[in-house]
Amino acid sequence: MRQAGRYLPEYKATRSRAGSFMGLATNVQYATEVTLQPLDRFALDAAILFSDILTVPDAMGLGLSFAEGEGPKLARPLRDEKSVGALQVPDLEKLRYVFDAVTSIRRALNGRVPLIGFSGSPWTLACYMVEGGGSSDDWRGVKSMLYSRPDLMHRILAVNAEAVAGYLNAQIDAGAQAVMVFDSWGGALADNAFQEFSLRYTAQVLAKLKRTDAAGTTIPRIVFTKGGGLWLDEMEKLDCDVLGVDWTVNLARARALVGGSKALQGNLDPAVLFAPPEQVAAEARRVLEDFGTPHSGTGTGPTHVFNLGHGISQHTPPEHVHALVEAVHSHSAHMRAAGRKA
Amino acid sequence: MRQAGRYLPEYKATRSRAGSFMGLATNVQYATEVTLQPLDRFALDAAILFSDILTVPDAMGLGLSFAEGEGPKLARPLRDEKSVGALQVPDLEKLRYVFDAVTSIRRALNGRVPLIGFSGSPWTLACYMVEGGGSSDDWRGVKSMLYSRPDLMHRILAVNAEAVAGYLNAQIDAGAQAVMVFDSWGGALADNAFQEFSLRYTAQVLAKLKRTDAAGTTIPRIVFTKGGGLWLDEMEKLDCDVLGVDWTVNLARARALVGGSKALQGNLDPAVLFAPPEQVAAEARRVLEDFGTPHSGTGTGPTHVFNLGHGISQHTPPEHVHALVEAVHSHSAHMRAAGRKA
Repeated sequence: MRQAGRYLPEYKATRSRAGSFMGLATNVQYATEVTLQPLDRFALDAAILFSDILTVPDAMGLGLSFAEGEGPKLARPLRDEKSVGALQVPDLEKLRYVFDAVTSIRRALNGRVPLIGFSGSPWTLACYMVEGGGSSDDWRGVKSMLYSRPDLMHRILAVNAEAVAGYLNAQIDAGAQAVMVFDSWGGALADNAFQEFSLRYTAQVLAKLKRTDAAGTTIPRIVFTKGGGLWLDEMEKLDCDVLGVDWTVNLARARALVGGSKALQGNLDPAVLFAPPEQVAAEARRVLEDFGTPHSGTGTGPTHVFNLGHGISQHTPPEHVHALVEAVHSHSAHMRAAGRKA
Repeated sequence: MRQAGRYLPEYKATRSRAGSFMGLATNVQYATEVTLQPLDRFALDAAILFSDILTVPDAMGLGLSFAEGEGPKLARPLRDEKSVGALQVPDLEKLRYVFDAVTSIRRALNGRVPLIGFSGSPWTLACYMVEGGGSSDDWRGVKSMLYSRPDLMHRILAVNAEAVAGYLNAQIDAGAQAVMVFDSWGGALADNAFQEFSLRYTAQVLAKLKRTDAAGTTIPRIVFTKGGGLWLDEMEKLDCDVLGVDWTVNLARARALVGGSKALQGNLDPAVLFAPPEQVAAEARRVLEDFGTPHSGTGTGPTHVFNLGHGISQHTPPEHVHALVEAVHSHSAHMRAAGRKA
């Protein structure tokens, strides 16, 4: 999940120098700086590219902007047959600033931790592309299109799948060492619609992804569907290595269901970070214990990647994140030691 | 789910005469009128009391109001130990207008269809009581309290459980023929927190509910948790007759899981109603087929109560609701006939 952000004063300082969110995201130097800020504070095990999922619709010509204190806006949303028909996979050169940031961050990391690249899923991008921004409640615009004109929705999603695959492959070429697909709004869909309009296109993305970088190193793939816990058994069939799960999922059950073939990533409720450090640590231990010992004495078995169940809130006190990272490291070391003895 | 509402011009006319939402909800004549409006348009099989879930916090002295075009506001939210300590089960006389409306509606229905009473769940009421209104994103206030001061949260929930039980029992006394507990925000909770802070208090409510009305007629109990699909097996242990499920749930799976002891209610995505009538009918048939034939040839087996998976949107064209009700009736008659032959 997002590591950098408004909860860090140093992020706010950089953003203020950049002038705007897009000024920050499109500037290689600033993007590198804010990506590394959380690593300088916390003993994190990986870095994630600082960017926004709407860079791809922006490169498609939909006109992204961020008004202060509001969410993202797309100036030219897809509302009719004509605009959907005109949608094209973007020229990846328009996203060069992202790939340059990946290369710059990778260089700045200098092997300290691996760098994760990411994209929104085809469905999640489509939500914003049709609505023209976030939805306060019911995704009325995009769901109206989905149920009224599934042909238009499928056309958008096919273009998005192609674009997302190209975008992630270019991130791999630029130096990303793992890639993550965020299906932040898959969980808004009805059973059946999720499979047809989200999962199917995530699978298309994965089918087009490079398995290795130019040096032949395998690039792990992570898929996260917020609110997707009910569909884990179907997501198990995805050609990916890790499934991210939100905090509604019981990790022991999820492990029993898909742990044979997938690692699981998650799933602390980010709201836990509003509580004092002792409670943060206790909840982190609970999440680790829910999953259970990652490796048996023989060194095999399913893997757990500790993470939040969704993005970190801007209202999070940084010292609570510190307590979280410490608790995860010390308690998982404890669990591994106990596992070896067992 | 809500049947009356802003999607109906006759509702808007009554509300305009009432002057405000609370003017509507607290006036027996108006509440009766708007409860019956959907029945005059559509061949519905039940009526549901027109009211708001926040009547109970209002009676507790938290000061409910609805600003035009905005959600509900509570003037005196519970933010600290003192306000939580002062919270009391309300004098039910303050909710007399609700019970009078139930009696009036029951009389006006005159046996046409049964009348369902309802309440918010203890947890869902607590969400509003701590936040002071709805939450645009993460229920930060209420979750901060839950993780930081679980003792305060448990105190609120214990008072709420007592209040909700009294409120529903008084609705039964007034003439409600079934009662429904809406846990609209149970799905915002993490696994483990849901069981501790939502499910447990819903169970407390059910334990205090009357089983029959004064005439000895059984009062069925319905529990709906939006986003609760992952916890259906735990909800099966609730002392209720029906579990409501939202549109993310696969009805065939849910039936296999809990259909042995519970009827299922749901689960059409209300956004389907934005599509043209033919698609509405097709999606309604899909929901019915997902559940499958309710009764086998021998007249036994699990029951499906067709419903939306959540409240109807104010943007719904009424003629689409008409198409829905027709499709449900004709297709379920067809399925029953086929089931008898089989």
